[in-house]
Amino acid sequence: MTARQRKFWGWGFEGEALSPEEHDWLLGVMHERFGDLPEPIPVPRLEEIVLRRPRVKPPAALAAIVSDSDADRIRHSYGQSFPDIARAFLRQFPEPPDLVAWPETADQVRQLVDWAGGAGVAVIPFGGGSSVCGGVEPDVGPAYAGTMSVDMTRMNRVLEVDKASRAALIQAGARGPEFDAELKTSGLTLRHFPQSYQMATLGGMIVTRSGGHFATLYTHIDEFVESVDLVSPGGTMQTRRLPGAGAGPDPNRWVSGSEGILGIVTQAWMRLQDVPKFRAAATVRFTDFYRAAGAVRAIVQSGLHPANCRLLDAQEAFFNGAGDGQHAILVLGFENADHPQDAKLERALEIARDLGGIADRPKGEAPQRSGAAEAWRTAFIRMPFWREVQVSYGILFDTFETACTWADFEDFHADVSREVKAAIKDASGQEGTLTCRFTHVYPDGPAPYFSFTCFPGKARMLEVWSQIKRAANAAVVRHGGTVTHHHAVGRDHRFGGYDAERPPVFATALAGAKGALDPKGVMNPGVLIDPPGAPHRPGGILETR
Amino acid sequence: MTARQRKFWGWGFEGEALSPEEHDWLLGVMHERFGDLPEPIPVPRLEEIVLRRPRVKPPAALAAIVSDSDADRIRHSYGQSFPDIARAFLRQFPEPPDLVAWPETADQVRQLVDWAGGAGVAVIPFGGGSSVCGGVEPDVGPAYAGTMSVDMTRMNRVLEVDKASRAALIQAGARGPEFDAELKTSGLTLRHFPQSYQMATLGGMIVTRSGGHFATLYTHIDEFVESVDLVSPGGTMQTRRLPGAGAGPDPNRWVSGSEGILGIVTQAWMRLQDVPKFRAAATVRFTDFYRAAGAVRAIVQSGLHPANCRLLDAQEAFFNGAGDGQHAILVLGFENADHPQDAKLERALEIARDLGGIADRPKGEAPQRSGAAEAWRTAFIRMPFWREVQVSYGILFDTFETACTWADFEDFHADVSREVKAAIKDASGQEGTLTCRFTHVYPDGPAPYFSFTCFPGKARMLEVWSQIKRAANAAVVRHGGTVTHHHAVGRDHRFGGYDAERPPVFATALAGAKGALDPKGVMNPGVLIDPPGAPHRPGGILETR
Repeated sequence: MTARQRKFWGWGFEGEALSPEEHDWLLGVMHERFGDLPEPIPVPRLEEIVLRRPRVKPPAALAAIVSDSDADRIRHSYGQSFPDIARAFLRQFPEPPDLVAWPETADQVRQLVDWAGGAGVAVIPFGGGSSVCGGVEPDVGPAYAGTMSVDMTRMNRVLEVDKASRAALIQAGARGPEFDAELKTSGLTLRHFPQSYQMATLGGMIVTRSGGHFATLYTHIDEFVESVDLVSPGGTMQTRRLPGAGAGPDPNRWVSGSEGILGIVTQAWMRLQDVPKFRAAATVRFTDFYRAAGAVRAIVQSGLHPANCRLLDAQEAFFNGAGDGQHAILVLGFENADHPQDAKLERALEIARDLGGIADRPKGEAPQRSGAAEAWRTAFIRMPFWREVQVSYGILFDTFETACTWADFEDFHADVSREVKAAIKDASGQEGTLTCRFTHVYPDGPAPYFSFTCFPGKARMLEVWSQIKRAANAAVVRHGGTVTHHHAVGRDHRFGGYDAERPPVFATALAGAKGALDPKGVMNPGVLIDPPGAPHRPGGILETR
Repeated sequence: MTARQRKFWGWGFEGEALSPEEHDWLLGVMHERFGDLPEPIPVPRLEEIVLRRPRVKPPAALAAIVSDSDADRIRHSYGQSFPDIARAFLRQFPEPPDLVAWPETADQVRQLVDWAGGAGVAVIPFGGGSSVCGGVEPDVGPAYAGTMSVDMTRMNRVLEVDKASRAALIQAGARGPEFDAELKTSGLTLRHFPQSYQMATLGGMIVTRSGGHFATLYTHIDEFVESVDLVSPGGTMQTRRLPGAGAGPDPNRWVSGSEGILGIVTQAWMRLQDVPKFRAAATVRFTDFYRAAGAVRAIVQSGLHPANCRLLDAQEAFFNGAGDGQHAILVLGFENADHPQDAKLERALEIARDLGGIADRPKGEAPQRSGAAEAWRTAFIRMPFWREVQVSYGILFDTFETACTWADFEDFHADVSREVKAAIKDASGQEGTLTCRFTHVYPDGPAPYFSFTCFPGKARMLEVWSQIKRAANAAVVRHGGTVTHHHAVGRDHRFGGYDAERPPVFATALAGAKGALDPKGVMNPGVLIDPPGAPHRPGGILETR
């Protein structure tokens, strides 16, 4: 029902994929790592997918914005996790939504939520469909008459820009490139670039506490939410536009991370940045990852506030064309719209050198767009397109990410790496690979981001993934980390992860708040907490595979 | 029951007051402004206060840590607001706690809360007793068998310091100077200095979202809470030490600002700062307050992140000995433990000059401790001691503080000033004074802090205060601000303020969370939301005067 259709088997819109050159390069990398590859599974076509019949009918009054077509239901069955793409290629769609709605106003959202409450239909808020943790999968169990995905992407406009306060009112269904194109005409930007930027919507970013461009200070989108509108079954909430406040708990922080269980975000006033004019960037090599981590700690504790401070371990740097495989690489960048950043970079490099780094400062006109940093950036942006190719050959590539204190980091990294490597071997029979980088860093600790790959083959890839994912959830939480620094919880991170990490008293409070706003429990049931009544596979796919 | 006793009629400990010189200076200022002064009310003595009998007996099992003596009850009847001190001087103590408890362990806190739940006794968490909004006043109404203040100040130790992660585990009853003295031995500091620093406890700072030293970036203590322990009637919650996370809503942010209604904070891991070594500071004069505000906006939007960026209007600067009465004064300061700050100050001054400021850069060894900035700092620290003198003569001096967007600021400031000045005149028959400063500033708006004074006399001072306070609550909220940027809500900021500012749906969610943790509603009833059943004077003293 929109001009461009999202691909239902992979990243991006229909017609988008790796270029032939990128595809050949990726095949070469996979061949080099795993040897001869089998025939790939062909890309699935809509007409190959067999869905169960819709269990509920669209409400007559809302028929113009609600569909029960197979195509729409297939396109809203999954997000973008490994098992999502794998199941699409395997033509497995056991839990499609029964209905898909495209509201165009907050009042229509309210009508949809009201109808669902009356009809006992679970509501699955759907933004860019870029969840990597089962956050948009309508797998809610038998307690509901049916499920309805509410696709917010028709509410995609920038409604107002306040240049003096550097803020804009943006509808929740606007994707990153959509709102930024509009903001650019005012010389402003949200400057929040999660890897899902191309597809992800503002509302999805807010309710999942997405992690963006800034490696320090403004790591999560939470920092940029000035006010938010939420449609819940209990009514519509509009928080006040305030730069700061101390009047009770911050309502915006209750919406941030709520993942659709309290209601649907329809719009938000967002704090913006001036487009940066001054940049200074460099990469620094270290022979030892832990020694590099020590330098990163000193830099992030210095008060220099780098915009970019991403540390790649030697193998991760090598895989992304940013290193020689022998050195950990620190990608360091400063930026500002008001004043030059060279002195800050120099001081950061001085700290890095004092702690064993070898600086490789790029020359030329655009220091932030060259060398190792640029190689890594290109890989980062194009990586979502890799997955459909890998999956088609039965190659498993996935990531998990966390955060811990500096005091714990070395033991944490060693323990988690050892346990997840063991799980890869147990599950796949192979050594596989496990690499690590820091995506964001704090004065009190880093956010380590792990990538792993192995070659279980098409028949076993879902089972092997589930076994490794369970081990990863358990390992990061057992050793004191969080099950997710910025990917959100959804269904996949509950199992052995969020349910163990979260204090039980907080689960009680969260359920109390949800129960007050959503007494029938129709909002995204099973995400974060169990819906009222018997729990339904709180682990999502992890519980059934 | 402790070595040093807090004064029950004013700021600080017994024996502390203005020096004779300060006292004479203040009398001179008051005389100049208000003419001849009457005989002051003598400082109240414990034996003059007549209390109602305790309505409940201390639990036998906890007798060693619970008192029902008049002296202890009097000392826990009030915080430090204007009406609190005024009522102490007027010997009015209608709602003392029936009991006062001094737990020494989290388990004792749990036992106290459990006993209170069973006995139907309201629990009033009590830290430094520095609330200025009725947050610790046991005025809970007839639904409870009695009230028990839980004084946390025996839990005042720094339990652990993690130097690598720059964090420390601190008990909730530790006052600012207590924990900082301990942290200093590790070269670290919380560097969070609310005006109440001398008396306020860590737990009180956290649950009231106190505003501290940093004018930008780290304005509220929320930013420094790495993890927190909360004893609620529904159980004890310990959040995980994480530098950052995206796993659901942040539990720490539910405790921040909860003002005791969800439970009692017993300890917290706090993020610390290195003690600064490099400083650069200056003051800038402006002939126009709004023009100065424009310069502050440009500075706070520049990414320079000043530690100090406090703007005083001309009259406020004059009253505090920091200006000539003709110029608004901007107190600007940068600080860092790692690298010099001079270039940042130079750039900030350049911005200020471009926008009409006249920089007055101090010379000498300690630039941050001289001239107008130092005059203002001294006044700020000593100001809490002024109140008992002013009150004794029937002089009303009070403050209210808020935040708004830059786009709204000029109209907001003009409207609020006009309405509150009118209320001062209506209530007192006098012009009075109303001045403004920015305590904290954000890229999207300032936090204006208003001070007002008039001379209603001893007999009318409470009534006049109530009338002005009601007008101030209503004005800041009606014109789009918050009823409190960092003083918290308590009881006094609900009336016409928080209850109007807070979205009703959020009140529902908050009540749902509280109901789940505290089904009997014994935790600080009436603060933030009404307790279960009939509301009891949600406006506190504002409803009865």
